[in-house]
Amino acid sequence: MIGGGFGGLEAARSLARAAVRVTLLDARNHHLFQPLLYQVATAGLSPGDIAEPIRHIVRRLKNVRVVLGRAERIDRAARQVVLAGGASPLTYDYLVVATGVINSWFGKEQEWAEHAPGLKSVEEALEIRRRVLMAYEHAELEEDPARRQAWLTFVVVGGGPTGVELAGALAELSRNTLAGNFRSIDPREARVILCEGGDRILRAFSEQLSGQALRSLEQLGVDVRFGSYAAEVNGQGLTLGDERIDARTILWAAGVKGGPLLATLETEQDRMGRVRVAPDLSLPADPRVFVIGDAAAVRQGEDDFVPGVAPAAMQMGRHAGEQIQRALAGQPPQPFSYLDKGSMATIGRSQAIAALPGGLELRGLLAWLAWLAVHIMFLIGFRNRILVLIQWMWAYMTFQRGARLITNEGEPRAD
Amino acid sequence: MIGGGFGGLEAARSLARAAVRVTLLDARNHHLFQPLLYQVATAGLSPGDIAEPIRHIVRRLKNVRVVLGRAERIDRAARQVVLAGGASPLTYDYLVVATGVINSWFGKEQEWAEHAPGLKSVEEALEIRRRVLMAYEHAELEEDPARRQAWLTFVVVGGGPTGVELAGALAELSRNTLAGNFRSIDPREARVILCEGGDRILRAFSEQLSGQALRSLEQLGVDVRFGSYAAEVNGQGLTLGDERIDARTILWAAGVKGGPLLATLETEQDRMGRVRVAPDLSLPADPRVFVIGDAAAVRQGEDDFVPGVAPAAMQMGRHAGEQIQRALAGQPPQPFSYLDKGSMATIGRSQAIAALPGGLELRGLLAWLAWLAVHIMFLIGFRNRILVLIQWMWAYMTFQRGARLITNEGEPRAD
Repeated sequence: MIGGGFGGLEAARSLARAAVRVTLLDARNHHLFQPLLYQVATAGLSPGDIAEPIRHIVRRLKNVRVVLGRAERIDRAARQVVLAGGASPLTYDYLVVATGVINSWFGKEQEWAEHAPGLKSVEEALEIRRRVLMAYEHAELEEDPARRQAWLTFVVVGGGPTGVELAGALAELSRNTLAGNFRSIDPREARVILCEGGDRILRAFSEQLSGQALRSLEQLGVDVRFGSYAAEVNGQGLTLGDERIDARTILWAAGVKGGPLLATLETEQDRMGRVRVAPDLSLPADPRVFVIGDAAAVRQGEDDFVPGVAPAAMQMGRHAGEQIQRALAGQPPQPFSYLDKGSMATIGRSQAIAALPGGLELRGLLAWLAWLAVHIMFLIGFRNRILVLIQWMWAYMTFQRGARLITNEGEPRAD
Repeated sequence: MIGGGFGGLEAARSLARAAVRVTLLDARNHHLFQPLLYQVATAGLSPGDIAEPIRHIVRRLKNVRVVLGRAERIDRAARQVVLAGGASPLTYDYLVVATGVINSWFGKEQEWAEHAPGLKSVEEALEIRRRVLMAYEHAELEEDPARRQAWLTFVVVGGGPTGVELAGALAELSRNTLAGNFRSIDPREARVILCEGGDRILRAFSEQLSGQALRSLEQLGVDVRFGSYAAEVNGQGLTLGDERIDARTILWAAGVKGGPLLATLETEQDRMGRVRVAPDLSLPADPRVFVIGDAAAVRQGEDDFVPGVAPAAMQMGRHAGEQIQRALAGQPPQPFSYLDKGSMATIGRSQAIAALPGGLELRGLLAWLAWLAVHIMFLIGFRNRILVLIQWMWAYMTFQRGARLITNEGEPRAD
């Protein structure tokens, strides 16, 4: 099992009572509840609130061993996972690859990543939090109006769920949380711009729901631009088509791709670097290796794919675990089929949209309460659920955010 | 006002209704509740739980402006605070210096600091947390028994409150929290060694109380060494007198000193680099500059000094604010006098000692409950109080710790 995310953990759990030894490898010691990572990036939650040590999660699964280490390469011929740093390779009979995806700047990684960080790890979330909070500090001290405005301009690239959640939370941060905290600036004058390349946000939802989400965002004061692709990004701002926007804080939520480990499987990948798997989620040429979760391109119907969401990863994890048990029992493989339990996205305080199975759609406060309930239910670890719920209730009542720390700040960025 | 700790904030508060403009300068955006920093270092609390944005704390004090920046030098002749990074200097009529203290490795900063980090900032606490948690991960993978034992040996240098609290929390982490989480090692086999140069720990307390604290620590399995000074510290361990201890994790709680800014005041400092102040807390040669809190050496009786604790810093802050108002009203200065409200130290789960004014001494569970109540009452910000209380209740009931994240981990340390 490579990866302690939703898919990898579920695969390990589904093998808990089987007569197998499971090694769960992850480069991090914690499982991260990624759907709430944007809350860390916008100072609403602490990293500890949405992360749980993998060892702790699987402590009662006595046939599961957790290894902290980075998989460098998979050698399918030798049936080994080669680790970084010279540690002994891990040998497998069956392998489940659940490494998720990483940010993609569409080939501009070298030039853009430093100016427009993405949101995939705790470190990236803390870096975004640092940049956002520091921008207001710089603006407070800046006397030149144009430069002050550039510090107070926040651009989010990408109108998917992450981009929409980030933009909504940034708008609320400026309008509510920080109001009254500064003397030279009024944080409510901050501009939040969301750039979407297509013609609507949240394309996974119906036109009606994405229209509703757009209205909610605009009510929060977010400036949403359509058909606008980032043409140039640097430390001073970005170019959208012909327009230059001076912005000191740019956040990237425009794309993801499979990580470099997947290429070492030497099997077919799609345009996004995801692995094309057989119907049972194994590799077409290797029934001992399964790829699940976001890292897998799993067909659903004609030209659709299973979405990269936590419930899908968990279903795939369970399926892979079952297939391994079937193979050990000499039974033939079964195809995976995704059961859509609905999807939701939140726009901000008490605004969300939800598409339930069967075509039922929710929006507004009701959708937001559903979103809250589902996310808290899924948060792994009982303690975290209560804590996060209390923080949210508190934040809801007071507009305050509990984790407004700037850490790892070296010298202030030069102007 | 330089410094947003207990002293600086209290000084700003005491000037809230005066006809003065106050600038509160701090290199960090948050006030840190340092008495609980050891809980962050041992994965019990998240940084956000014990930190609050300074801007938020003083948002209602309309005559207080908060500036995020690092004071590089104080120019008393020009009455200016010169900032790092080329920002405009701040001019003052009266200045309150409340910069606290930094770790001291007694002249071995260059050689030892990297191998034996101290505990003064959020970053240092997270670095300690990272090293402690990683040590168990390395031990789990290490096959050589001697090297495994070195990963499982934790040495805390210094038997003051910080050292005792760290050692107690490390012992509890190994005995309770991590038990059952590993497959190759038993975390309960970890050794925690506390080295104290003198002949007893917690010297600020009576012999009876420090004896009680020692027994509590030993019951937790901590190996306490007296009369042992660190003679050599490196990445493999340390030398105590003639004895060599192989330990991959060494934590430094043996000393503090005034920061480099204090020297630019060009006034007398004591051996620890603290500023010797006049009875009213101003500089002997400059009635416009006050030094308060841990950064000040304030005589109390014959050869005793006011201790470096939060209540003392707050009392000094209030005093400095009052003296400034008296000076503006043409009144003569008054001497500061410290009102001892008692002191306490915690050793671990339900064990503490407390010395109250009037000679009353508490120990055991009662002292621990008193410690808990006082620390939670003092935590700035209502939200944090409730959250921390819940985390503690939860941790108390389950032995679990809520912030077991390893972050900012690059490549694993080489063996």
